[in-house]
Amino acid sequence: MKNNPQVQNAIEHFRENYGSYFERFEEFIRIRSVSADSAYNPDINKAAHWLSDYLTDMGMENVTIFQTRKHPIVYAEYLKAGKDKPTILVYGHYDVQPPDPLNEWKSEPFEPTIDGDFLVGRGTSDMKGQIVAGLYAIDSILKTGTLDVNLKFIYEGEEEIGSPSIVDFIKSHTDLLASDFALNLDAGMIGKDDPTIVYGLRGLAYFEIFVQGPDHDLHSGLFGGVVYNPAQALSELIAGMKDKNGRITLPGFYDAVVPMDEQERQELARLGLDDGFFKEQTGVQELYGEVNYTPVEQVGARPTLDVNGMSSGYTGEGPKTVIPSTAMAKISTRLVPNQTPAMVKEQLMQYMQENAPSQIKWEVKQLSSDPASVADRNNFATRCFVDALKEVWGTEPVYKREGGSIPIVSHMKEILGIESVLSGFCLPGDLIHSPNEHLHIPTWKKGVEATIHFLANMGSCDE
Amino acid sequence: MKNNPQVQNAIEHFRENYGSYFERFEEFIRIRSVSADSAYNPDINKAAHWLSDYLTDMGMENVTIFQTRKHPIVYAEYLKAGKDKPTILVYGHYDVQPPDPLNEWKSEPFEPTIDGDFLVGRGTSDMKGQIVAGLYAIDSILKTGTLDVNLKFIYEGEEEIGSPSIVDFIKSHTDLLASDFALNLDAGMIGKDDPTIVYGLRGLAYFEIFVQGPDHDLHSGLFGGVVYNPAQALSELIAGMKDKNGRITLPGFYDAVVPMDEQERQELARLGLDDGFFKEQTGVQELYGEVNYTPVEQVGARPTLDVNGMSSGYTGEGPKTVIPSTAMAKISTRLVPNQTPAMVKEQLMQYMQENAPSQIKWEVKQLSSDPASVADRNNFATRCFVDALKEVWGTEPVYKREGGSIPIVSHMKEILGIESVLSGFCLPGDLIHSPNEHLHIPTWKKGVEATIHFLANMGSCDE
Repeated sequence: MKNNPQVQNAIEHFRENYGSYFERFEEFIRIRSVSADSAYNPDINKAAHWLSDYLTDMGMENVTIFQTRKHPIVYAEYLKAGKDKPTILVYGHYDVQPPDPLNEWKSEPFEPTIDGDFLVGRGTSDMKGQIVAGLYAIDSILKTGTLDVNLKFIYEGEEEIGSPSIVDFIKSHTDLLASDFALNLDAGMIGKDDPTIVYGLRGLAYFEIFVQGPDHDLHSGLFGGVVYNPAQALSELIAGMKDKNGRITLPGFYDAVVPMDEQERQELARLGLDDGFFKEQTGVQELYGEVNYTPVEQVGARPTLDVNGMSSGYTGEGPKTVIPSTAMAKISTRLVPNQTPAMVKEQLMQYMQENAPSQIKWEVKQLSSDPASVADRNNFATRCFVDALKEVWGTEPVYKREGGSIPIVSHMKEILGIESVLSGFCLPGDLIHSPNEHLHIPTWKKGVEATIHFLANMGSCDE
Repeated sequence: MKNNPQVQNAIEHFRENYGSYFERFEEFIRIRSVSADSAYNPDINKAAHWLSDYLTDMGMENVTIFQTRKHPIVYAEYLKAGKDKPTILVYGHYDVQPPDPLNEWKSEPFEPTIDGDFLVGRGTSDMKGQIVAGLYAIDSILKTGTLDVNLKFIYEGEEEIGSPSIVDFIKSHTDLLASDFALNLDAGMIGKDDPTIVYGLRGLAYFEIFVQGPDHDLHSGLFGGVVYNPAQALSELIAGMKDKNGRITLPGFYDAVVPMDEQERQELARLGLDDGFFKEQTGVQELYGEVNYTPVEQVGARPTLDVNGMSSGYTGEGPKTVIPSTAMAKISTRLVPNQTPAMVKEQLMQYMQENAPSQIKWEVKQLSSDPASVADRNNFATRCFVDALKEVWGTEPVYKREGGSIPIVSHMKEILGIESVLSGFCLPGDLIHSPNEHLHIPTWKKGVEATIHFLANMGSCDE
């Protein structure tokens, strides 16, 4: 298979037409498809149309934009390889994180800017760059020959807000989406020389905790000392969610967590993601975490809890002597397999019931809930992708359990019964979700070529 | 003295001209003189000019607007009573609190709106209404006769932001401001039928605590579990500032606090400000506080600590899976006599040094600092004011230690060597510093009349 001429032809085509491919990629980045804020809705629709137009140009069929209650889902298919060939469900999300805080960007977030080997802009890495890597691989093959696999495409616009529509969509379109496996390039590499297969993903349970003290803001001089300050109460509740060893104290939180076995610990250790790596990525001088676990175990294989946002009272310039009437925190937990968001919700409610002071009122709202998943590392499609990565990088890929959540993976397994090949060409330093998000262009190019290898060699890959 | 015809003439004048007095008051409310936000600077200047114009119209002399590094101080004087008569330094502040949160106002904050017996609007009670009460009393006397006391006026525009300029101003104008005592109507009554003399005021030490974790916002999936979340750290620090008995844990915080004696406790108990009063004022179902102290002792005679504001990370709509890089809290303590803001700053720094986790960086900024004060309840001027209150309300005034801080009182004592008569016609339910601030008009009218009694009878008041 290494001498498959179709691979070489497609790669040459990609290289020769790199300029126009890149220009179209930049066009995609310029679309401000932020899903979290309804002010960007016109751009969300523009991004969906950009995708459907490109899929049509590529010769895909049955290209459809499905409206949902929120942001549209783009579908397309290519079934010319025939029923005896495998069908791949290509997944992606065309929405991006909000660009805030804007003042920390060195260039315009939605104006793709080349800086050395990097393309800087919101969505370059997460995951518009990954979407076009897949599309350009397919296009390059089709422009220079034929494709020996069938394809279906599903692109959502709600991944960054917890994918509220996709589960219902998949459930009501099981025939349309029936495939042999999914290809999901929304996971990343651990370093530019280490192509990576992700086989475990943490789940996510995201909550908003709302606390009310007095029924209006009070003068802190006149009433300080007689009411339970809601910001104080919320701080106490948050503080109590972890103990001195960094363990989460929600009642029963660790009950369902499967302990790591020695083999897995050794494998994770081999990733080489040491303290220095995490310090460099985060800019902290000293790491933190649950005792007895290495950082890579903590982000990959252990559940965690984080405050994502918090607000109360007066936060403008100068002093305002007010006792706030309310306080709010956004808190999310990353879950490992066997923990479920519903379990965690119950544990959080129990924690609040047991610990919230009687003087305040409180409310917990669940903003998103996605189970964790661990994929079969030895399925046929993953092995094919591993071969393709080896061809391009000349090295054995590493296997990683990822700290992030890609809930679609467990939904596809549950509803469609298919495994996902989880990989991608994003690097740990790409600053996804942060200002100055960027993409390492040489790695991205290799990614396109690896995907060409994968798709063109699928037929000859070892079963 | 009860038959002093000058008092009756002045009161009649006030009643007959009530309409035009009230209109001019409304004009004053419409000026958006918020001191905390520089966007309102033009209105701050407008308010200073409104005052100097009115003082000029009243026939006051040497009317001057002094520029400071921030907001101007308005001065005026009336010295026609002669050197053998007492000189009163009338103090006030023409600045107001920010109107936020705007959406909780039932009418426009800066459009004075009559609602039954109340005038609703920012500053109606705190303290534009109190300023004009004093001015209208003086004007009514001068329009119907002569004034037997000398007056000096000092109005600042920075009280709501901790009066950063007034101390220097007083220090550098001791001759100009030399007086026998001050009249300060920025304190309130405990109920509409209980005219009140405030003889103790808490001090204020206001801080901003800034915590930094990672050097940029991180993806909570990729890095959750390996960095100390700054919002978590700040919550833990805030939570630790109070123990289970509601006591403040800053090292040595209570060392300088003078215990209350039995007599004072009994007097405070006689105020009749019970649990029901504080629940009604705050809208809470259950009060909170340091154990072994009644609510009125807590707000009046014990030091307290409150979170005034707090913010970190993403606080917009929906979920954003971010680990914030920073967190901020505004925290203030109310101090009792012998505690000083400098002491508390030191205690807070020590607390932070001992308790802040090593994984985070932190900074403490002091935003304002005012000592507490206890006035001599038996000074001549206070006794005169008590007589005037009795005349109008027909009842013995109550003596109160106030929870709020009016730092100018201790500054005047320290720098000018004068006591302040601390009273005013604000009621506990006026929602000062909150949305829908309002003034009880009948009480305010009585206040004008009591001030007429006070000023016109000063000469015949018992020494």
